[in-house]
Amino acid sequence: MDKKLNFAVLGGGSWATAIVKMLLENQDEVGWYMRNSDAVGFIKIQKHNPNYLTSVTFDTDRLNLTDDINGAVGHADILIFAIPSAFLGDELEKLTVPLKDKIVFSAIKGIVPESGLIVGEHFHEKYGIPFENIGVITGPCHAEEVAMERLSYLTIACADTEKAKFVAKNLGSDYIKTKVTKDIIGTEYAAMLKNIYAIAAGIAHGLGYGDNFQSVLMSNAIREMKRFTKRIYKIDRNINDSAYLGDLLVTGYSTFSRNRMFGNMIGKGYTVKSAQMEMKMVAEGYYASKSAYKLQSKFKKKAKTPIIDAVYQVLYEGKNPKKVFAELTEKLD
Amino acid sequence: MDKKLNFAVLGGGSWATAIVKMLLENQDEVGWYMRNSDAVGFIKIQKHNPNYLTSVTFDTDRLNLTDDINGAVGHADILIFAIPSAFLGDELEKLTVPLKDKIVFSAIKGIVPESGLIVGEHFHEKYGIPFENIGVITGPCHAEEVAMERLSYLTIACADTEKAKFVAKNLGSDYIKTKVTKDIIGTEYAAMLKNIYAIAAGIAHGLGYGDNFQSVLMSNAIREMKRFTKRIYKIDRNINDSAYLGDLLVTGYSTFSRNRMFGNMIGKGYTVKSAQMEMKMVAEGYYASKSAYKLQSKFKKKAKTPIIDAVYQVLYEGKNPKKVFAELTEKLD
Repeated sequence: MDKKLNFAVLGGGSWATAIVKMLLENQDEVGWYMRNSDAVGFIKIQKHNPNYLTSVTFDTDRLNLTDDINGAVGHADILIFAIPSAFLGDELEKLTVPLKDKIVFSAIKGIVPESGLIVGEHFHEKYGIPFENIGVITGPCHAEEVAMERLSYLTIACADTEKAKFVAKNLGSDYIKTKVTKDIIGTEYAAMLKNIYAIAAGIAHGLGYGDNFQSVLMSNAIREMKRFTKRIYKIDRNINDSAYLGDLLVTGYSTFSRNRMFGNMIGKGYTVKSAQMEMKMVAEGYYASKSAYKLQSKFKKKAKTPIIDAVYQVLYEGKNPKKVFAELTEKLD
Repeated sequence: MDKKLNFAVLGGGSWATAIVKMLLENQDEVGWYMRNSDAVGFIKIQKHNPNYLTSVTFDTDRLNLTDDINGAVGHADILIFAIPSAFLGDELEKLTVPLKDKIVFSAIKGIVPESGLIVGEHFHEKYGIPFENIGVITGPCHAEEVAMERLSYLTIACADTEKAKFVAKNLGSDYIKTKVTKDIIGTEYAAMLKNIYAIAAGIAHGLGYGDNFQSVLMSNAIREMKRFTKRIYKIDRNINDSAYLGDLLVTGYSTFSRNRMFGNMIGKGYTVKSAQMEMKMVAEGYYASKSAYKLQSKFKKKAKTPIIDAVYQVLYEGKNPKKVFAELTEKLD
């Protein structure tokens, strides 16, 4: 592929910031859109993001920073979206320049609430982008460790392997190793499902379950993820690869995970609403658990997903977490 | 099976103490041998183990506590060994009563250094106990959480399913769920291998690798464990079951794991000897890594085991951990 293809990263959070850093190891110039114009102004002067990964300094001469999404999209050939899925719809509505000829990679974990679709499917269905131009960038990867240049492994998924390799090459460096796969659907669903399992881990912790149970929960979660992704999209995949099991573990065992924190508050007795207010945000796994649960009705045969079911019952049916998890423990092994 | 079968637990450590507690939920009386006669005397008066799980109080009227291994073995039908593998040989040498008609369950994780065998194989080869009378009790299970009655899941393995079920029933309670399997070899090797992976996790941490890498390491470790156990003993097993993946995770993610601590010291620059002296003990994974590495030469075709190889090189070939792990990162994905 042509080295002259231009990248633009869309999003102003920690993951977007980390991706810009990775690309700048390989690209002379990178486009970077964020809606917060104060942050754009700040970075231009202070050379770092005011809110996320503040230790990462940027050579701003090599950044095309803008708060105009149409400018960023218009100038780029490859778009990397790293906007939280809950805000993606609003951002895309601002677009006046066409998306359909772009190569679109999603670094978003979650479901677009408006469509109930994972991001790749959303771009395909709503913007007519062919699947060979859609890709996924997935971890296991805490952005904070990229900032510290701690060794991390990314998986880049695209039906068109050449495009996956090109993006992988441009993200790779001394501290980033990459791997490509064609399993765009599986990697994206895995990234979404792991947030539900992180909520489950948080609820269990909040209820007083310990490390022994946590390991049993994770061992059941990966088996559940295997069954679920197999129903969604059958492809030759090893569920224990980093993009699936690794991604589950880095989130499920992280005490910094917002999804786990959200679950922990629920386990400790907060209502869903009060936990969300306290956190001043909605954890992505909140939407994911509804989508995953509802999706089951589309399957010819429901996959056995006791953990997703339990999280759904707690978050959406107002059931008592202690009771739901006591029942769940009988279904795990 | 006959409810009148008598149990004896052999060992005075935390796991032995936890197993005695579990059995007493179901058995009127339990035999308990430990070599430390001071501890035996202490428990009889103070009703708790002076050194391990000190919060657990025992109804000593229901314990047949002794520092005489022959007495304990002679009176019991089912023996549960929970003696560290490094000391097992010395303890077994004291035996004058025959073992061959006993049902022997191992709750030991590791290799018997004298024979280089896992515990089940050691009892089979050295004491002529038929495999249908040999079993394994495995986690994921920190003994400390059993003391707190936090929900834990055990897997009980025996070629004779009836015996596995009988032992499982006698260990089960409100806070212990059990599962049986015929995979005695696989569960025992998994319990041994996980200690090597815990050392690897510790070395990586000591060298400054972060959580992203840890999740990649664990994701590669479970795939390696699958390849290794498949070579050792082919049986229909799901490597993501609790006894394999769960056990790996509870150890690999535990900062209290002695194996992980040992690895951490090595990663931070201690020599193997100084780390062992500092810890005043030899981590089980130290022996396990040698056995696992050497075992490969018996396979027709070597399994791909880059993590075991790396740990072996660091511990036994005096190679530089930083260099070995830099090479290892190229072999993981």
